[in-house]
Amino acid sequence: MSDSLNLKGNAVIGQSGGPTAVINQSLVGVVEVLRGGSGVEKILGARHGVRGIVENHFTELQEIPEDRLERIAQTPSAALGSSRDKPDEAYCRRIFDVFEKNNVRYFFYIGGNDSSDTCRIVNELAKQVGYELRAFHVPKTIDNDLVCNDHTPGYGSAAKFVAHAFIGDNADNQALRGIKIDVIMGRHAGFLTAASVLAKAHVNDGPHLIYVPEVAFDVDKFVADVDRIYTQRGRCLIAVSEGIHDADGTPIVTKLARDVEKDAHGNVQLSGTGALGDFLSQLLKSRLGEKLRVRADTFGYLQRSFAGLVSPVDAQEAREVGRKAAEMALIGNLDGSIAIQRVSDDPYRMEYRLVDLAEVAGKTRTLDAEWIVDGNMISDAFRRYALPLVGKLPQIETLRDR
Amino acid sequence: MSDSLNLKGNAVIGQSGGPTAVINQSLVGVVEVLRGGSGVEKILGARHGVRGIVENHFTELQEIPEDRLERIAQTPSAALGSSRDKPDEAYCRRIFDVFEKNNVRYFFYIGGNDSSDTCRIVNELAKQVGYELRAFHVPKTIDNDLVCNDHTPGYGSAAKFVAHAFIGDNADNQALRGIKIDVIMGRHAGFLTAASVLAKAHVNDGPHLIYVPEVAFDVDKFVADVDRIYTQRGRCLIAVSEGIHDADGTPIVTKLARDVEKDAHGNVQLSGTGALGDFLSQLLKSRLGEKLRVRADTFGYLQRSFAGLVSPVDAQEAREVGRKAAEMALIGNLDGSIAIQRVSDDPYRMEYRLVDLAEVAGKTRTLDAEWIVDGNMISDAFRRYALPLVGKLPQIETLRDR
Repeated sequence: MSDSLNLKGNAVIGQSGGPTAVINQSLVGVVEVLRGGSGVEKILGARHGVRGIVENHFTELQEIPEDRLERIAQTPSAALGSSRDKPDEAYCRRIFDVFEKNNVRYFFYIGGNDSSDTCRIVNELAKQVGYELRAFHVPKTIDNDLVCNDHTPGYGSAAKFVAHAFIGDNADNQALRGIKIDVIMGRHAGFLTAASVLAKAHVNDGPHLIYVPEVAFDVDKFVADVDRIYTQRGRCLIAVSEGIHDADGTPIVTKLARDVEKDAHGNVQLSGTGALGDFLSQLLKSRLGEKLRVRADTFGYLQRSFAGLVSPVDAQEAREVGRKAAEMALIGNLDGSIAIQRVSDDPYRMEYRLVDLAEVAGKTRTLDAEWIVDGNMISDAFRRYALPLVGKLPQIETLRDR
Repeated sequence: MSDSLNLKGNAVIGQSGGPTAVINQSLVGVVEVLRGGSGVEKILGARHGVRGIVENHFTELQEIPEDRLERIAQTPSAALGSSRDKPDEAYCRRIFDVFEKNNVRYFFYIGGNDSSDTCRIVNELAKQVGYELRAFHVPKTIDNDLVCNDHTPGYGSAAKFVAHAFIGDNADNQALRGIKIDVIMGRHAGFLTAASVLAKAHVNDGPHLIYVPEVAFDVDKFVADVDRIYTQRGRCLIAVSEGIHDADGTPIVTKLARDVEKDAHGNVQLSGTGALGDFLSQLLKSRLGEKLRVRADTFGYLQRSFAGLVSPVDAQEAREVGRKAAEMALIGNLDGSIAIQRVSDDPYRMEYRLVDLAEVAGKTRTLDAEWIVDGNMISDAFRRYALPLVGKLPQIETLRDR
């Protein structure tokens, strides 16, 4: 392997899918290590993910001064631009053609499980023709739904936003009582919605009910749950995943008569609309009484790109997965995905591991069944899992009446 | 006045209207000063505003340990609970009866202009019968719409949330391009929506369009504005007040066919629903093309009670208006509202002034006309006004393509 240590060639880095508050940490992690690698010539940032590669739209990252690079690392959302394209075999061939033509020997794709699959296909095309390519998937997703990983960079900061929002919203709901529904991102996995439980510092605190996509949503049970809590407490704070669906798998949002937008993959639009929250509000009013004060907020894109509320652990790990991928690429003819493994909860310790691209590609992890209590609450075990990823939360103090 | 220096009696403090991130600072400000006053006997916190007074529901605040009091000050939303009740003359008489019966001689009501009016009426009832009452309005509102004030406690922290959200959302909209609408609180006054302009660090940054209730909203002009920006930049980030209305004063949200809830004052429900954002999204798609990527987020209640993102200036001033009200009450037979006056922008300096209750009561301040540019943007003069209230914002760095 010694002759490949200095594999001469260019590097391409791309960012994919929904932005996060720390995805630029991973970008900078890759860049800063590659800049120390003797074999690496140009470091090319692909604009808007795979689309930038096939359209030959790159930004050179080799010469950016360190202080500017550090500011980019601290900036939320994907600095190179992102893409929702999910390349098929033919698209991947176009990517590989660009790589071959431009002597690209190092490829880093920062994203979720689709991005891992893109890495895998491009890498196999390279192997088929004996072209040495070091292809790495760098994990990122606020959904926290990558298999082989204890958790994923981006999740901790998004979960921190959700926990802060619920601490405030619980206090708000105590002050002006009523029923409050908060809709949180997550199509198939309820990790982000589950993070709302971190806001419960006292048994009376909300969220009082938490609904995740891992459990089929039963409209009648929902109404009964809310009625019970509201009767008991005079208020009810509810966390709901945007992706909740009924027992047949039909998203609850499609129960609305109105047109629902679908994306290129045929997925129903869940974010960037208040439709689900408004539907659930109307449902509760029609069933429990039109005079009830029912309000719904949809956290929307704020969750993933909010400025200035990053989890330090998340930022550090996002940087490190980028660095580790680049370090491995410089060591030898390796490829794979950098995975995070937990060693212990308290004190929190973790380690990085290289896993096969095929292991991560195209699979979705969901909440462990034992973390979900009675289909409408999240366990203390999940709190112990999530808290180290989010970090310290604001302490609140109340003048409780009930 | 010397014999009234030690006016013996009880004190009542209440919190009213929409909570803020710093309204408990004002509560604690009043309490800590009153505890040093020799004439003050019980310090009674009214639960849920005026309702707690007439229902005789109080929490004693005299004995709370200082460290706990400080934690309450740091907690968002109204610790005593709030109320939307807007007392009329008869309601105020019930309040005054409770005061007379319980020898309440000090009354502090923390809230917006309705609260100032409540103070005023109760105070006049006291004067009519020669009952010495020291009634103070302590200003609070995220809407920043009190007359006689340069700005209002609660606004700076809500504006800080909005600015942070837009810094992130601008980066998000750069990464995944399209049209993004963000709906911000504000029924009659656009101060909070205008704070979105603080996120613009570069000429290309969003928000690219800002619509406030001070300008009649013209649907056709809106569509043309968005079309122009989107054609030019390939993206468009838009800030919209929930209270935008047409030239007749009809709220745009009522243009929806669906039922719109009204509150006790006959006001249309604007918050706690995604209806306006979804309506504007559909409008843009139907006029500019169904294939466009249009998303809407409604910031909702997060703006006013978010935990852990308080403006230090706002927190300090909120504390101080409470302290000043209590100090005046201990000095002599005074009443009024504590107003904030600006002395200079840079360096930021301000001072407190006692104004008549009647001056503040029931009036609404709106954005200065010269702060609004072309009906869809906010001026640099407003930035200079708002920035000291919000404090330092995260610096971002981009790899700009355009």
